Amino acid sequence: MSELLLLSNSTNHGAQPLDHAPLAEFYGGRTVLFVPYALADHAGYATRIGEAFARAGVALRSVHTETDPAAALAAAEAVWVGGGNTFRLLATLQRIDGLLAIGTAVAAGAHYGGASAGTNLACPTIRTTNDMPIVEPAGFAALGLVDFQVNAHYLDPLPGSTHMGETRAERIREFHEENETPVVGLREGGLLRVSGESVTLSGRARVFRRGTQPEEVGDGPLRPWGPPA
Amino acid sequence: MSELLLLSNSTNHGAQPLDHAPLAEFYGGRTVLFVPYALADHAGYATRIGEAFARAGVALRSVHTETDPAAALAAAEAVWVGGGNTFRLLATLQRIDGLLAIGTAVAAGAHYGGASAGTNLACPTIRTTNDMPIVEPAGFAALGLVDFQVNAHYLDPLPGSTHMGETRAERIREFHEENETPVVGLREGGLLRVSGESVTLSGRARVFRRGTQPEEVGDGPLRPWGPPA
Repeated sequence: MSELLLLSNSTNHGAQPLDHAPLAEFYGGRTVLFVPYALADHAGYATRIGEAFARAGVALRSVHTETDPAAALAAAEAVWVGGGNTFRLLATLQRIDGLLAIGTAVAAGAHYGGASAGTNLACPTIRTTNDMPIVEPAGFAALGLVDFQVNAHYLDPLPGSTHMGETRAERIREFHEENETPVVGLREGGLLRVSGESVTLSGRARVFRRGTQPEEVGDGPLRPWGPPA
Repeated sequence: MSELLLLSNSTNHGAQPLDHAPLAEFYGGRTVLFVPYALADHAGYATRIGEAFARAGVALRSVHTETDPAAALAAAEAVWVGGGNTFRLLATLQRIDGLLAIGTAVAAGAHYGGASAGTNLACPTIRTTNDMPIVEPAGFAALGLVDFQVNAHYLDPLPGSTHMGETRAERIREFHEENETPVVGLREGGLLRVSGESVTLSGRARVFRRGTQPEEVGDGPLRPWGPPA
């Protein structure tokens, strides 16, 4: 019975980091272990996220200060996985045996929260990240805490753009040329609250399923992987 | 003495594919073998690129119609590697032993041209691609025909954007947190003509070297890996 909070982005435009995240409600008194590996500067990142959690009244320490990070992750009652570069996040967790540790904690009831790269990490693979592959992970398999992919920071093409790179929707269509898994294009400001089999969207998303037209959805229950309701 | 033509993008806004590429001059009467693996529809892609080469008066056939693609690539006197998804391009070439074959051909004097994903493939690795990792290659090492990375479709942040995803410059800065290799951010419409040690830019680019401020450059000789001229 996994409890997950998955955000598109850490910081809304013009706002403080995580001010749009219901941290106190989601973590309910648990002490949160922060995973800063998506950025290079772990200490600086832990300070900034610590301030955001303090504003929400939630206790947080960072796994980069632990002598045995994998053991600390496996024993955590709650984790927050920060945004940044998804390839670096995954490669670092692979190196410290952190993936299995987080999976163990979540299976034992730990609450898992994340934003952007941290949301990608909860998916079956990182194949729908927007990030640059600046480091080479041992593979693209991620935690698989949900049975769909999220594309974070989802956005529409800009009207009148002359840029010839692929649009986000075109990239997800290419994903579905090679993969079956549904993709939730989670717009900025949006979040998914997962509780066991139940997935609830706050905000707006565009759901992509192979062989069908994408569907724009708003607040409410979301089941991108099942038959249409 | 490698001869390379590396484009940022296949198609300029409002123009026909490859109309901005000096194909006749670069290929000089050679028959070109087309590598369509960055897109899913090889036959459709070969038709479109065949039309573009026909407009330029350059003979082209596609490697996807060959019974032994690796042998055909190794024996080619010229190749053109089309744009699309860089991960798919690399994974497909790994599967058919195409990387070594192209390297063999270029070492024997074959002229190598490419756009976007095809330009990424000429670099040491694909670590500066903008593409979504829709398939998992066996590794990120690419052809290494040049000793710098290109970031294709390079663009500046849009003025007034409220989008919170990383800018292209931020992504390349993150690349340099993990890697030393210089990166040429090649703006759309731009191309690099490599002849042995000589690299000439047509168009505009932004050159990123670890630990220094990025440098905007225009038409002329380019040596992003060496000491400043």
